[in-house]
Amino acid sequence: MTGHLLVVDSIAANRCVLKAKLSASFLDIRQAECGQEALSMIAETPPDLVIAGGDLTDMTRETFCLRHKSGGQSAAPPLIVVGPHLSRDQRLSAMRSGADDVLVSPLKDAPFLARIRCLLRARETVQGLRLQESAARIPGLHEETTSFDAPSSVVFAAQDGSDALRWSSFLKPLVPYRMRALPIGDAVRTMSLYANPDCFVIGVQTNAPEEALRFLAEIRARSTTRNSAVLMVLDREDDSTRVNALDLGANDVMAGCFDPEEAAVRLAAILARKRLTDRLSKSVEAGLNAAVTDPLTGLYNRRYALPQLERIAHHAQATGHDFAVMMADLDHFKTVNDKFGHAAGDVVLAEVARRLRSQMGAGDLIARIGGEEFLIVMHNTSAQDATQMAHRLRDVVRSTPVYLRARDIRVPVTVSIGVTMGHDSFATRTSTSNPKRLDAGLLIERADRALYSAKADGRDSVTMTRPAA
Amino acid sequence: MTGHLLVVDSIAANRCVLKAKLSASFLDIRQAECGQEALSMIAETPPDLVIAGGDLTDMTRETFCLRHKSGGQSAAPPLIVVGPHLSRDQRLSAMRSGADDVLVSPLKDAPFLARIRCLLRARETVQGLRLQESAARIPGLHEETTSFDAPSSVVFAAQDGSDALRWSSFLKPLVPYRMRALPIGDAVRTMSLYANPDCFVIGVQTNAPEEALRFLAEIRARSTTRNSAVLMVLDREDDSTRVNALDLGANDVMAGCFDPEEAAVRLAAILARKRLTDRLSKSVEAGLNAAVTDPLTGLYNRRYALPQLERIAHHAQATGHDFAVMMADLDHFKTVNDKFGHAAGDVVLAEVARRLRSQMGAGDLIARIGGEEFLIVMHNTSAQDATQMAHRLRDVVRSTPVYLRARDIRVPVTVSIGVTMGHDSFATRTSTSNPKRLDAGLLIERADRALYSAKADGRDSVTMTRPAA
Repeated sequence: MTGHLLVVDSIAANRCVLKAKLSASFLDIRQAECGQEALSMIAETPPDLVIAGGDLTDMTRETFCLRHKSGGQSAAPPLIVVGPHLSRDQRLSAMRSGADDVLVSPLKDAPFLARIRCLLRARETVQGLRLQESAARIPGLHEETTSFDAPSSVVFAAQDGSDALRWSSFLKPLVPYRMRALPIGDAVRTMSLYANPDCFVIGVQTNAPEEALRFLAEIRARSTTRNSAVLMVLDREDDSTRVNALDLGANDVMAGCFDPEEAAVRLAAILARKRLTDRLSKSVEAGLNAAVTDPLTGLYNRRYALPQLERIAHHAQATGHDFAVMMADLDHFKTVNDKFGHAAGDVVLAEVARRLRSQMGAGDLIARIGGEEFLIVMHNTSAQDATQMAHRLRDVVRSTPVYLRARDIRVPVTVSIGVTMGHDSFATRTSTSNPKRLDAGLLIERADRALYSAKADGRDSVTMTRPAA
Repeated sequence: MTGHLLVVDSIAANRCVLKAKLSASFLDIRQAECGQEALSMIAETPPDLVIAGGDLTDMTRETFCLRHKSGGQSAAPPLIVVGPHLSRDQRLSAMRSGADDVLVSPLKDAPFLARIRCLLRARETVQGLRLQESAARIPGLHEETTSFDAPSSVVFAAQDGSDALRWSSFLKPLVPYRMRALPIGDAVRTMSLYANPDCFVIGVQTNAPEEALRFLAEIRARSTTRNSAVLMVLDREDDSTRVNALDLGANDVMAGCFDPEEAAVRLAAILARKRLTDRLSKSVEAGLNAAVTDPLTGLYNRRYALPQLERIAHHAQATGHDFAVMMADLDHFKTVNDKFGHAAGDVVLAEVARRLRSQMGAGDLIARIGGEEFLIVMHNTSAQDATQMAHRLRDVVRSTPVYLRARDIRVPVTVSIGVTMGHDSFATRTSTSNPKRLDAGLLIERADRALYSAKADGRDSVTMTRPAA
């Protein structure tokens, strides 16, 4: 697999058995003889997977699991506990302490390797997101934030719908989830209609597993459910079905008579991972947003706005619709800064941005592209409508002085606006050069010229460029 | 599946057959009676998948495929061509024109649905990346850039290594790829050792497909290969193996006697999609980088640096290692701007940033956190080493005047640096308030105080805060 495995067991022969089984799959296998040694090695260089044998001498299985996961479920590498003669209670107890799975030795190769692939896939997903996220980490958006999580939604589906219903009712007293039960056939048919559930529990009849396995494949193929957690419940142990289910993307598998407590433990583990993944994805999204946003005003920034303006221009050229480009500049902004300080200037900028945006449609573009300079682009508009809008923007800025809470004063603010129409710019361009390309620079230049006239007109006014002759 | 299907065929009965087969899988199925109608509908509201029947009346299959894909392979929804009695040449020709697959009717449900799942998965991946990418689109980094692509690397693996060798030598004259052939067993064992190939071609013996299918599952589980393209080659048609291969993550499947031309067409299609995905991922990465970078100097920005500093502080507190925080500020920078203009000021800032960074270790943090102000954090260091480093930074700035090419003049520049040690700040903090938390603000405040002393000392100098008494 990806590479690094740590095996911990105090009995050398046990370590050797595991090493032999896994040497084809791991680039490097390290060994530890006791729990403490393993924990230190993990802290120093985290492996991709930890396998803990039955005998650690210096601590119990539970202690080892708890201490391994103490850095937060998310950060620790996946942990499989392996041992002979483990009772149901011992297995559940190890899983509750943080083991991702507990396997009773002697191990069968195929399902053992499939389980490892499954855990490594899950880890890769988290690591990949974490990498993206750390590249663009936004203060206040850490994964550690214990924001309120709505109760997870779980769909139970089995070939026989009454199985699904029975399982969910067994679980009812044990878990806080919102649960729904239905036959697989119905689940497939109604899938597109419902909001995406956090988790599916799918019953599999091992003598005819096709329908259930194909349902799993569908879940993984749809955009709405591909990140949902999936627990497969086999009616009896069957290696081939187990391996298939894991490799098709199940997050966990249990087999035999349905054990509600075991299901509760396994669901808790895969749902925790699902929540972590969701949280990381959101954080990455926030990071991407931040890349195109001006932090002070929340408007788009210059880097986003210019290529966007170009795309709007090309689209307008292709469709024949006209569009308007405006440059709005605060009048005498330097005086505000000099008189009241930069903090006051920031308040004014944020408030003016808020007022401008409040007047604009969702499809229009507004960006802060300089200190006190805003770019506004209106799609699919006429010169008359654009001028009207520009006057409305001017009015909403001067209508009420901006209140500076920190100093308890009100500062009157005005704005000057230059407007140019896209098609006039095309006309200008056509006469002189390549009519196919119209760049943001030319449009902004024309709007800027109109802005200067507005400033020359005494400010607090709107000027429109004249159409090219 | 996700939802929207378009079926185009001039014979209503053919459309009905397809509609019946797929109604359980798609939320909404639209129909078109000829090629032109379909192309218009696709342009207006792109579906998730297009299925074109054998008979379009107004254009040939090839024309339809070509026009469908003319907006770029990446933008168009996947296209499956379906028809009775299609010859090998007809099938290859449709695929060369842009069809993602060509299936001969009557269709068998299971492999048909599996192929659809496979194409939709691929589309979801691209759409997801595209969404991220458009959120943070960086000018000059569009996917359309025709950057030089190194020849793709393809690994051929079959149970019998000589099959793999034969296939790759058949393909040699037809494709520009770097190819390697080996038995599956060797491929599994040596996987971790090689750079990740762009594509695997895996031979499957349908009477014993396990080894090949598990190899595919491994490819999808490893971080290095999970995005590789995979073409499975079955020794004879077998529905169950085909379905399994597709659902386990194969990008395409071919069956029967190895046809090099068909393999070349299918490889070209899946490799094109792989390149697109790679390009989009890189673009997203660039967007994420931009969110934390100061565009002028390429250093980290304030938003990244402050939480990072806090993390370093907490880590240091936990491990007991000391760290240094420095604030470096250009002396008389306003004069540079006033005398030579902002463009010259920008050149000076970029050059000073370059010099500062050139002195620092890869693990250290340097960020531009104000106009002419830099934050520098050194991990795991002593007061003595930090002071030494600060002097080195001061020296590298003043050693050579900055050359302004545009004006052909050299501007002497100096920097003042304030240094504080992390543990001294802990000490200060402990005596007054909660010893557990140490925020970036306090550290920067202390470094700032030292910086003011350095400025008061006549600038071009280094000052260290005195340890708390």
